[in-house]
Amino acid sequence: MPRYKLTLAYDGTCYHGWQRQVGKRTIQGTLEEAILDLFGNRVKVVGSGRTDARVHALGQAAHVDLSLFIHSPDLCAALNSRLPGDIRVRETEVVPKTFHARYSAVKRTYCYLIRAAVEPSPFLRNYTHQVRFPLDSDAMNKAAAILVGTHDFSAFRSTGGGNTLPTRKVFNSEVFFISRHTLCYFITADAFLRKMVRGIVGTLLEIGAGKADVSVMSRLLNTGDRTLMATVAPPQGLYLVAVSYA
Amino acid sequence: MPRYKLTLAYDGTCYHGWQRQVGKRTIQGTLEEAILDLFGNRVKVVGSGRTDARVHALGQAAHVDLSLFIHSPDLCAALNSRLPGDIRVRETEVVPKTFHARYSAVKRTYCYLIRAAVEPSPFLRNYTHQVRFPLDSDAMNKAAAILVGTHDFSAFRSTGGGNTLPTRKVFNSEVFFISRHTLCYFITADAFLRKMVRGIVGTLLEIGAGKADVSVMSRLLNTGDRTLMATVAPPQGLYLVAVSYA
Repeated sequence: MPRYKLTLAYDGTCYHGWQRQVGKRTIQGTLEEAILDLFGNRVKVVGSGRTDARVHALGQAAHVDLSLFIHSPDLCAALNSRLPGDIRVRETEVVPKTFHARYSAVKRTYCYLIRAAVEPSPFLRNYTHQVRFPLDSDAMNKAAAILVGTHDFSAFRSTGGGNTLPTRKVFNSEVFFISRHTLCYFITADAFLRKMVRGIVGTLLEIGAGKADVSVMSRLLNTGDRTLMATVAPPQGLYLVAVSYA
Repeated sequence: MPRYKLTLAYDGTCYHGWQRQVGKRTIQGTLEEAILDLFGNRVKVVGSGRTDARVHALGQAAHVDLSLFIHSPDLCAALNSRLPGDIRVRETEVVPKTFHARYSAVKRTYCYLIRAAVEPSPFLRNYTHQVRFPLDSDAMNKAAAILVGTHDFSAFRSTGGGNTLPTRKVFNSEVFFISRHTLCYFITADAFLRKMVRGIVGTLLEIGAGKADVSVMSRLLNTGDRTLMATVAPPQGLYLVAVSYA
């Protein structure tokens, strides 16, 4: 039973997130059905982490044990022929049995796209968060930089997020314009709490709109007070960009 | 009853095309419901032409008679607040009663987006036609240029396209790369037959892939022989860009 690492891109618009749920269309469930259809085996596809409903991925990682050896391009082609067009297997690789998509991951990078101060485009509504007001990217970037380092992210933890330890190490956290009206927030950390990125972006939006001061970010980290946090940003602007392994 | 011209952008992915149909989600039907909801009047929204299911618009034009005068930005905002995010009213304008969105239109411009020689992107599947093979854009552009002028487009008429005259005047018809892997076909004509653009693009794709010679385009125009035509290109790459009035 060789173990394969899969690198996946998906448009999360039509999915109830990563995790298999009875009667709901999910990324994990759809992948497992494609493999069942292809090999006749009911297998579990283990992801690096869950993405929520409507969240996208450019480079989600997963592992799965299959009953035979297949050359990577052939396995990609075979899986993609069974998958709907909004999920694509970008790459497959045989990995040692010790490889675990979730536990072996050392870094995850997310980005969040915001269109600001423009009329909302009907074509980008599922792929960006569109706001009518202008945003102060300098203030947002200052606040984003405060997150770099090892911190207790309790303030950004969603309720029902389980009881994992709330300490995370952030390697990179920055805001910049990628085009005249489109802002991008990039964050790389060892791991993330549930809805953590969207909570951070919600706070950055308040700061960018001038409704909150940059200092609110330090206060959130220092107090862990979830009531200080802004509304979480909506899912459609969020992309899991890449997962790194040692 | 002032008459308003509406300029519309829409993502056609989730619609059964422009034309109202009982029990189906259509652009016209959705607009008429938004107006009913807003003004309490059941009105008819007249489009410059029908777009098929999954076809998009950047600048569709339509007219509608309303029972009161409203300032354009207010009417836009009111309509957009009642419309789903995949239909946007870009502009409204009071026009004379002699204005007719379909009969007064003098030019229509469509574009068709093709991604060639790349892995299909899950994010662009509803917004471009994605092919794995490379395309010869020079050959395609030569064939496209043949269409400029007044011609009988019977060969590109879809069955069930009604019995309007098949002569159309093409002002502009060209193919060019807009990015490394993305080709765009632009065509402006006085009017179009049903599925005409998609029929032309189907033929251009055969020429670009080297399966047909550039000369097939003249043969199609000269013979009007529909059996020479390639399969029509799929709807999701097609955009109604603009409609011009005298």
